[in-house]
Amino acid sequence: MPDILDKASNKAGLPPGSLVHIGEHAADKSRVSAFIYDQDQCSYHREMTVGEIASLVTAGKVSWINVSGVHDTELIREMGNVFGLHHLLLEDIMHTGQRPKVEEYEETLFIVFKMLTFDPGQDSVQEEQVSLVLGKDWVLSFQEKEGDVFDPVRERISRAKGRIRRMGSDYLTYALVDAVVDHYFGVLEKIGDKIEDLQDEVLERPSKNIMQTIHKSKQELIFVRHSIWPLRDALNQVVRGEFEQITEQVSVYFRDVLDHTRQVLDAVDTFRDMLGATLEIYLSSLSHHMNQVMKVLTIIATLFIPLTFIVGIYGMNFAYMPELSWRYGYLAVWGVMLALAGGMIYAFKRQRWF
Amino acid sequence: MPDILDKASNKAGLPPGSLVHIGEHAADKSRVSAFIYDQDQCSYHREMTVGEIASLVTAGKVSWINVSGVHDTELIREMGNVFGLHHLLLEDIMHTGQRPKVEEYEETLFIVFKMLTFDPGQDSVQEEQVSLVLGKDWVLSFQEKEGDVFDPVRERISRAKGRIRRMGSDYLTYALVDAVVDHYFGVLEKIGDKIEDLQDEVLERPSKNIMQTIHKSKQELIFVRHSIWPLRDALNQVVRGEFEQITEQVSVYFRDVLDHTRQVLDAVDTFRDMLGATLEIYLSSLSHHMNQVMKVLTIIATLFIPLTFIVGIYGMNFAYMPELSWRYGYLAVWGVMLALAGGMIYAFKRQRWF
Amino acid sequence: MPDILDKASNKAGLPPGSLVHIGEHAADKSRVSAFIYDQDQCSYHREMTVGEIASLVTAGKVSWINVSGVHDTELIREMGNVFGLHHLLLEDIMHTGQRPKVEEYEETLFIVFKMLTFDPGQDSVQEEQVSLVLGKDWVLSFQEKEGDVFDPVRERISRAKGRIRRMGSDYLTYALVDAVVDHYFGVLEKIGDKIEDLQDEVLERPSKNIMQTIHKSKQELIFVRHSIWPLRDALNQVVRGEFEQITEQVSVYFRDVLDHTRQVLDAVDTFRDMLGATLEIYLSSLSHHMNQVMKVLTIIATLFIPLTFIVGIYGMNFAYMPELSWRYGYLAVWGVMLALAGGMIYAFKRQRWF
Amino acid sequence: MPDILDKASNKAGLPPGSLVHIGEHAADKSRVSAFIYDQDQCSYHREMTVGEIASLVTAGKVSWINVSGVHDTELIREMGNVFGLHHLLLEDIMHTGQRPKVEEYEETLFIVFKMLTFDPGQDSVQEEQVSLVLGKDWVLSFQEKEGDVFDPVRERISRAKGRIRRMGSDYLTYALVDAVVDHYFGVLEKIGDKIEDLQDEVLERPSKNIMQTIHKSKQELIFVRHSIWPLRDALNQVVRGEFEQITEQVSVYFRDVLDHTRQVLDAVDTFRDMLGATLEIYLSSLSHHMNQVMKVLTIIATLFIPLTFIVGIYGMNFAYMPELSWRYGYLAVWGVMLALAGGMIYAFKRQRWF
Amino acid sequence: MPDILDKASNKAGLPPGSLVHIGEHAADKSRVSAFIYDQDQCSYHREMTVGEIASLVTAGKVSWINVSGVHDTELIREMGNVFGLHHLLLEDIMHTGQRPKVEEYEETLFIVFKMLTFDPGQDSVQEEQVSLVLGKDWVLSFQEKEGDVFDPVRERISRAKGRIRRMGSDYLTYALVDAVVDHYFGVLEKIGDKIEDLQDEVLERPSKNIMQTIHKSKQELIFVRHSIWPLRDALNQVVRGEFEQITEQVSVYFRDVLDHTRQVLDAVDTFRDMLGATLEIYLSSLSHHMNQVMKVLTIIATLFIPLTFIVGIYGMNFAYMPELSWRYGYLAVWGVMLALAGGMIYAFKRQRWF
Repeated sequence: MPDILDKASNKAGLPPGSLVHIGEHAADKSRVSAFIYDQDQCSYHREMTVGEIASLVTAGKVSWINVSGVHDTELIREMGNVFGLHHLLLEDIMHTGQRPKVEEYEETLFIVFKMLTFDPGQDSVQEEQVSLVLGKDWVLSFQEKEGDVFDPVRERISRAKGRIRRMGSDYLTYALVDAVVDHYFGVLEKIGDKIEDLQDEVLERPSKNIMQTIHKSKQELIFVRHSIWPLRDALNQVVRGEFEQITEQVSVYFRDVLDHTRQVLDAVDTFRDMLGATLEIYLSSLSHHMNQVMKVLTIIATLFIPLTFIVGIYGMNFAYMPELSWRYGYLAVWGVMLALAGGMIYAFKRQRWF
Repeated sequence: MPDILDKASNKAGLPPGSLVHIGEHAADKSRVSAFIYDQDQCSYHREMTVGEIASLVTAGKVSWINVSGVHDTELIREMGNVFGLHHLLLEDIMHTGQRPKVEEYEETLFIVFKMLTFDPGQDSVQEEQVSLVLGKDWVLSFQEKEGDVFDPVRERISRAKGRIRRMGSDYLTYALVDAVVDHYFGVLEKIGDKIEDLQDEVLERPSKNIMQTIHKSKQELIFVRHSIWPLRDALNQVVRGEFEQITEQVSVYFRDVLDHTRQVLDAVDTFRDMLGATLEIYLSSLSHHMNQVMKVLTIIATLFIPLTFIVGIYGMNFAYMPELSWRYGYLAVWGVMLALAGGMIYAFKRQRWF
Repeated sequence: MPDILDKASNKAGLPPGSLVHIGEHAADKSRVSAFIYDQDQCSYHREMTVGEIASLVTAGKVSWINVSGVHDTELIREMGNVFGLHHLLLEDIMHTGQRPKVEEYEETLFIVFKMLTFDPGQDSVQEEQVSLVLGKDWVLSFQEKEGDVFDPVRERISRAKGRIRRMGSDYLTYALVDAVVDHYFGVLEKIGDKIEDLQDEVLERPSKNIMQTIHKSKQELIFVRHSIWPLRDALNQVVRGEFEQITEQVSVYFRDVLDHTRQVLDAVDTFRDMLGATLEIYLSSLSHHMNQVMKVLTIIATLFIPLTFIVGIYGMNFAYMPELSWRYGYLAVWGVMLALAGGMIYAFKRQRWF
Repeated sequence: MPDILDKASNKAGLPPGSLVHIGEHAADKSRVSAFIYDQDQCSYHREMTVGEIASLVTAGKVSWINVSGVHDTELIREMGNVFGLHHLLLEDIMHTGQRPKVEEYEETLFIVFKMLTFDPGQDSVQEEQVSLVLGKDWVLSFQEKEGDVFDPVRERISRAKGRIRRMGSDYLTYALVDAVVDHYFGVLEKIGDKIEDLQDEVLERPSKNIMQTIHKSKQELIFVRHSIWPLRDALNQVVRGEFEQITEQVSVYFRDVLDHTRQVLDAVDTFRDMLGATLEIYLSSLSHHMNQVMKVLTIIATLFIPLTFIVGIYGMNFAYMPELSWRYGYLAVWGVMLALAGGMIYAFKRQRWF
Repeated sequence: MPDILDKASNKAGLPPGSLVHIGEHAADKSRVSAFIYDQDQCSYHREMTVGEIASLVTAGKVSWINVSGVHDTELIREMGNVFGLHHLLLEDIMHTGQRPKVEEYEETLFIVFKMLTFDPGQDSVQEEQVSLVLGKDWVLSFQEKEGDVFDPVRERISRAKGRIRRMGSDYLTYALVDAVVDHYFGVLEKIGDKIEDLQDEVLERPSKNIMQTIHKSKQELIFVRHSIWPLRDALNQVVRGEFEQITEQVSVYFRDVLDHTRQVLDAVDTFRDMLGATLEIYLSSLSHHMNQVMKVLTIIATLFIPLTFIVGIYGMNFAYMPELSWRYGYLAVWGVMLALAGGMIYAFKRQRWF
């Protein structure tokens, strides 16, 4: 989360709506691509300029313009001009530390949320901001980098699978949100696997830095929860019918996504409980182990201390110590000591001390 | 809960409303059965095809069609066509990781919730998703497997017990929900017995892995709570009269079920408190025991250490040690040591150290 | 709370509204008594049959019919017929595991709540379900057993004290609720006394099973809270004027009872805080005591171990050990040892180790 | 808080509105005094009877009648008759365990809240119930004892400072509430001083019963919070304009008091956090100290135990022990022991054990 | 927070609206400066008197009057007269312990909030109260001291950057709030750096008073949260459109600030979680370290105690001890001791004791 801070503090003092990219600087060039489709036809255009885009958008067809890379100020500004976007909206697109939200700017609906992916290399969850702008006939989507989870949507459009080609831009918006939320499940599954591994490790042979691993996983869950929680509220607004841009027919689908979001958050909570239990069991087994060691060692010490005292007695050099000259004195001492040790062991056992 | 994740991630990328069964794959064939009844007559039909079902449903009579097994895509799709069900509704029926909810799809009311059973073999609670669809004259019920808790309802219908034969499809819906909620009590009773056994074990002779047993019970309670909690909200919506499909006359009965749901949740909370207390008492008794052991052992050690020092003194080989040649030196040392030991024991007792 | 479960699971599968008594089976016969009064007259009738009751109720007078013992199915059914009560209402009366609630059944208002009494013999709080049904001219009250807290109300009616004889059936309802809530204060006072005794014990000489006593008190408070908390919500509904059966004039009195309920709940919270503090102080004093013991014992051991080493040196049997033959060798060793012991004690004191 | 219980349980069974004083019995006689003022004139009357008061109240002037001592049933009843007060209102005045609240009784507005004072003698916060009744032209104030925080208000009235003489009875009500709330700041300041002393003590030389002092302070804060929290809600009702007795012009002033109440509650929360931190630091420093002691002592013991073993070896009396007869055997043993001790100290240091 | 108390208690008893400065007494003279601008022109005036200010304010232009230093009662009173401000508003300006809030006083809107700055010298966050009064054509800003975060706004006005010169006084208000909120990010970044340093220190070589440093940071976060949290609610009121002084066009900008406030609070929560984890890891590593030390030391002691016992045996002076005269007795004892030590070490290793 300190990310947000780094990002934001660079910008303090600029007038609002200043188009400055705030986020990791992607080396790649921003790329613009477009799907233009209706029930009968569908065309796909890659590596377009904004001018070309503007000429493609046709009333009566749905246009999905996707921008990968939001660091190109000029491009964003042009998009804003062509589609008549509010400058605060443009600022939010370029400033990649937004909380998920749905906002209305006059005619258009603006949805910001987080695409989560699991990076196996770093063994951690990566976050990427996705902004959707829903107009009458078009949907704009902005991503931080190339690579996304929208391929199934692209395929459904180009192959006319499902009902996407028969529906309007609001359904497309739904399909994009749905694709991202569906991907949350896969990410959580990965986190779940890690937590189950942790649980096994705790019960068998915990490594030295397991505490830190547990805390890291906890931080990760908090991070995921922070990324998703506000989306639930935002989708709730959509489902309650607060925005006219979403028709009632599509609202049912958003209710479905909202449901999935709730399931994801339930799973996050469950994982948090599991982590908590893992930590408790770890600490408890640690303290149990420690107690066992100390107890056994202390019992050994306690057994020998009185015996050592006894042998000390007959090591004294007094001139007059009758026992020393007894014929079976030495044997008698051994007898006394064995009886004492046996008695103590018996007493300890009776008290269930080991 | 990771179940949900396994289930959902398999489906990511499919268009919404894709009828793919998500859940444990039941080996059994899906079976369809139907009750058709009014106040005077009642007929029961087993092992029907969807076509036969369609011909049976008669206006003026109540039809209850029960489907056991939701993995047969074709069957579900046909049911959807015959009864005019929304494809998202069908998807929810087949996707068995739903949170309990009540949703309206145009004319029909869709209720999803969990049937809980206690499996004595596995010594754990099993969950099965039940979906009800309430239309004007009919109720559809979908279960994951053969075997349910609806037999009392079947008996009341066939024997015309109570008022079920005189009432409409909304009352039948109530009766089915009520049967499931009533069964929750039995499941909780089983869990309660286990917790009471745990409490007894803690106070007597706790086994080594009692911590894990306690945590397992806690997880189980959380699981049960997760299954029931959203049902309370859903029933609340029904009782507030948000849905026209439930007449006011039957709404009173739903208020009764809602009440039972609250009682179940109260019991879950009580059990959680009891488990918490059990854990605390266990940890406290553990630490008390440990403390006792350490204290007694340490006292023994402490008693003998000064004595050992004394006998060490007279084991020294100095040429000039006057005490050694005294007539009663040895006895005197014994006297000093006994006095010292007695004094220490007296002091420890006074300080209430044991 | 497992009570609820025992009770409810016996009933699973019966049609709703089945009149089966669920609760402890009282040996006593159910008894019915009635007060019939208006401003001028008042008559009291004991050991009535339901038929006699029916003939007594007169328009223009207030009738209070009290039933002690709810296990007599036939009696409850007859009452239901005479007063036209909904069968779910009758079921709730007989099923004694209800949560406190206020419900409207057409004309009548149904109030269920808990009468708490402190049983000095068992040293614990006893709960008894009280159900009130408020009709136009009559109030029915149902209790589980003979013996209640309504005597002051009876006296006020028969001696025409206060304004009860001048008011309607809603005021009588208030008076009965008020009598029960007033009694809560006495019960809490008893619990408070026990907690204060616990606090004293903790500070002085805690017995071995004080942990369990504390937990038992905590459970008791949770139990009391569970019994009263829903009543607050129910009374709130009454005060907000949701029910027409309560006139505005009497609503003011219910506001007063609601206030008392809040005070009781405040007291419960305060007691819980006190118990929590008691537990913390106990644990802290326990650990402090333990630490003290271990510290002193360890210091004693630490003092003597170097001394024992020294005397060990001069117990060695080397042929050439010059110190052994010194004239004042023995004295010198004593001197060294005393100096060492003194130095260590001084150092420990400086470090504030005891 | 058990106060409430003592108070309330004495009253169980009496008809509602019974005027029985419940609270500490003040020895003093109840005293009644009155201010009658308008913009031009102001008269002050002390030690009045209720009859005299009745004759003084004049339409067009504001009358403030203050009653110190609420144990005189007769007096309260007379006041009730003269000013037409509801008997439940009178009961609340005499029953001094009320939660702060604002209630409307027909024309009049009834405000109950707590006056807090810090008693330096007992080193604790004292609570006194203040009841205000606001009528059209008059304000009645009831206190438990002589002595209050209203002197500044009296002075402003008599010297015509500020705008109090130009405003109506609702402004006077505000002024009285404000005086009490302003005094909360002073009380909290005293508590704050105590907490800061505690913090210093913890960091320097904590006394033995500091745990109990911390818990006592925590109880005190909970007590203060309980006294003030409901007042916030009550004032909120006033500010939202729920009561017609408060004109919109004066409502702005109540918003100001509400603000102060929030500040007080913020301060209480801050103090609670501080106390919590103090406790944590204390416990942590305690355990740190203990650990240090045990570690050093154990290291000393561990150093000497092997050495004692070595000298034990050469104290054995075997006939054939070659080392004993070596010329420099004794020196060699010393050398070995010094080397061993040095090595152990070095190893411990390397492991950062001290 | 005790600040508030010091401040407030000095004022108890004064009539409301008394203009008494409460806060740190700034030595500086209060300074008044003014910007008067419209789209075409802009003039800046420093070190003005209130009279001069009054003559400058022109309808149709936006006037921003900034007052640095709120301790000059006379100045504040004059400002109040010139701009027609309510005396409670003036009181709040001078009393610098306000909670952030937005209040409406007839035509004007009053916004109070906190300017946070990080003082590197004291290594802590400093708070300064800023009050804004928004009238039709003017904005008044009051600060406690010279020096603020408004320079970027001043520059945008004088250089006509952005849209500030084209907009009204409500936009200026937004710009000032935005400048302060933007600065929060920088402050939090500093706190974040400190927390990250703490985390590193904990994992490497924690200093002795790290506990206190952690608690200090926690207090600081609570302080920051207290300063910002109420602002969120206040801005929420603005965004919901409760105040007519903010036009709908500017409301969109306030929504943006509200969003930033939420991000700041999210960051505060994240930092608190991080601090909590840091503390937990510290305590756990501390206890781990301690356990390790104790375990190793105890093992050493336990190893040597039986050996010391054995050498004690042969230090006894019995006349008849056959072993003593054996030829290889001494060697045999060494053998036994080595075997015993080896066996114990082996057993300890097998039990994973070290």
